[in-house]
Amino acid sequence: MENKQKIVLTGDRPTGKLHLGHYVGSIQNRLKLQNESEVSFYMVADVQALTDNADNPEKVRNNMLEVVLDNLACGVDANKTSIFIQSQVPQIAELTVFFMNLVTLQQLSHNPTIKTEAKEKGFNLNSKLEDEKIEDLSLKGIPMGFLNYPISQAADILFCRANTVPVGIDQMPVIEQTNDIAKKFNATYGVDLFPKVTGVVGEIPRLVGIDGNAKMSKSLNNCIYLSDSDEEIKKKVMQAYTDPSHIKVTDPGKVEGNVVFTYLDVFDSDKEKVSELKNQYQKGGLGDVVLKERLTKVLIEIISPIRTRREELAKDKEAIFEIIKQGNKKALEYGENTMREVRKAMKIDYF
Amino acid sequence: MENKQKIVLTGDRPTGKLHLGHYVGSIQNRLKLQNESEVSFYMVADVQALTDNADNPEKVRNNMLEVVLDNLACGVDANKTSIFIQSQVPQIAELTVFFMNLVTLQQLSHNPTIKTEAKEKGFNLNSKLEDEKIEDLSLKGIPMGFLNYPISQAADILFCRANTVPVGIDQMPVIEQTNDIAKKFNATYGVDLFPKVTGVVGEIPRLVGIDGNAKMSKSLNNCIYLSDSDEEIKKKVMQAYTDPSHIKVTDPGKVEGNVVFTYLDVFDSDKEKVSELKNQYQKGGLGDVVLKERLTKVLIEIISPIRTRREELAKDKEAIFEIIKQGNKKALEYGENTMREVRKAMKIDYF
Repeated sequence: MENKQKIVLTGDRPTGKLHLGHYVGSIQNRLKLQNESEVSFYMVADVQALTDNADNPEKVRNNMLEVVLDNLACGVDANKTSIFIQSQVPQIAELTVFFMNLVTLQQLSHNPTIKTEAKEKGFNLNSKLEDEKIEDLSLKGIPMGFLNYPISQAADILFCRANTVPVGIDQMPVIEQTNDIAKKFNATYGVDLFPKVTGVVGEIPRLVGIDGNAKMSKSLNNCIYLSDSDEEIKKKVMQAYTDPSHIKVTDPGKVEGNVVFTYLDVFDSDKEKVSELKNQYQKGGLGDVVLKERLTKVLIEIISPIRTRREELAKDKEAIFEIIKQGNKKALEYGENTMREVRKAMKIDYF
Repeated sequence: MENKQKIVLTGDRPTGKLHLGHYVGSIQNRLKLQNESEVSFYMVADVQALTDNADNPEKVRNNMLEVVLDNLACGVDANKTSIFIQSQVPQIAELTVFFMNLVTLQQLSHNPTIKTEAKEKGFNLNSKLEDEKIEDLSLKGIPMGFLNYPISQAADILFCRANTVPVGIDQMPVIEQTNDIAKKFNATYGVDLFPKVTGVVGEIPRLVGIDGNAKMSKSLNNCIYLSDSDEEIKKKVMQAYTDPSHIKVTDPGKVEGNVVFTYLDVFDSDKEKVSELKNQYQKGGLGDVVLKERLTKVLIEIISPIRTRREELAKDKEAIFEIIKQGNKKALEYGENTMREVRKAMKIDYF
């Protein structure tokens, strides 16, 4: 790659509104990178969302607008970042198909992300023909689209020859797989077409759920959404997991694993005050309600302006569609440029 | 499907010039069907050829023109059949990606064509994580593109909603897989978008090689090509497998398994004469050379005009390119029409 520009590719699956976990895990990273790069793409990964929602396309469709609104409300700037929809860029599918020749079934089965996620979703990764040998009969057959998704993600990244991709810590294998494919393509066809991709992990790679679960996740119903009302925020914070043995205000309480303190560490800008509160809590004499009221205030200060901008933006859907159309156009241009080079390299540029 | 038109999809992998096996196995079927259908597509399957020629794209590129010339020379009529190149129709890749959500790894592994061909190519179909359990260490990892090819073929057929596909007898599982995918898509998205596909097997589904091998195949070096010169045809026929125990002219000879008689049965229009020769051969008193001279004459009568047309056509490559460009255009129109409906069904027609 002669191109030394920083090209960023980032995105969300449109399967639900975004929450605080997304905010600290990817959106803040995204806002930083859009100011540090020459080219920045944000992709609504609808094709990927359909890999495990094939029977619920309405959900994917409805959430397309929601995730775009969430991102714009947080500060993703359409003048800096081209917002596009994966399904509207056929070059991604074309690259996916070509990349599939460069990766074996065995390599994919060893991909740690596939192994983990297949397990989570109850998919059987074994293609062995003797089905009777499958010990766990509750396992479902793994859809090819799901198995193939590290290859699809490589196509998502490389269609615009992005070299910088904000990721969660558990997604680093995707970056490795992408670099393997890029290297294999370049070597097979004797070209220097695809760049080396760097995965950029955010400062807070994973936010615990309000229930103390390791991950804030829609399916666990433990999220505070960027579109939640002040009342919803308050209600959720009041139910947050603290220290179950901290019963009376005078009891000493634990700070470790206490969701309210975890959140204050992340979101409260007054670090000194938080440190003071921790000391007091550990000694005893500080009630959960006081802490939770502070956290509620802190979170409302963050979410309320986002929500207001979100509501404002949502009033003019046509304007949002126009932003996406412009983004699609730019993505198509980049995709077509890449495919022109790909066809040349693969000698299928016939005329 | 309200559409009651007969839509034919047929094609070749551009991995070599076509031979007599193709002529009787698919081309004659193709010529018949182009006159019996409202719409007829012929696809140069370059993307599919690249699934196991990823490291030899030059071969695929060069043979694109060869297979088109072979077909035109045999009578495929560009006014009746749209000749297009698979890689130039991105909707096929898009459909492939969507169809991958509807088929599991296990279903593909059970596909008889995949099982047979994986074995032939020495691919290991097992994705089991414990590699040490693979008994045959000579097995290569199976490329995802190869494993996925029944799905790609469904996309090849359904992008133009073809309902009639000429096939070899060993390709019927591909038609079944296509119909499974079509049914699954229609059911999942509550539409009647994809038709039921009928596979049409030709009268002579498989031609033996000149060496007596069950299949005429480039890799077995036992082919008579549609572009062979009269001298080449003669030379090859003279080497054809007959009856190894038929040494002297006066010896009685065997007809069964005798390639020369097999070919005379297929290509000689004077069936009465062939029957007479068989009797004479079985009794003794008929030499191989006489028979082979007759077969040479019969084959030259078939191949020579094809070869002449082929040479004539090859003089004006621009005219051939123009035919293909027109075919690509029509395929793109059909593909875009189908994708419009697909996007609507999958609710990704956002604006």
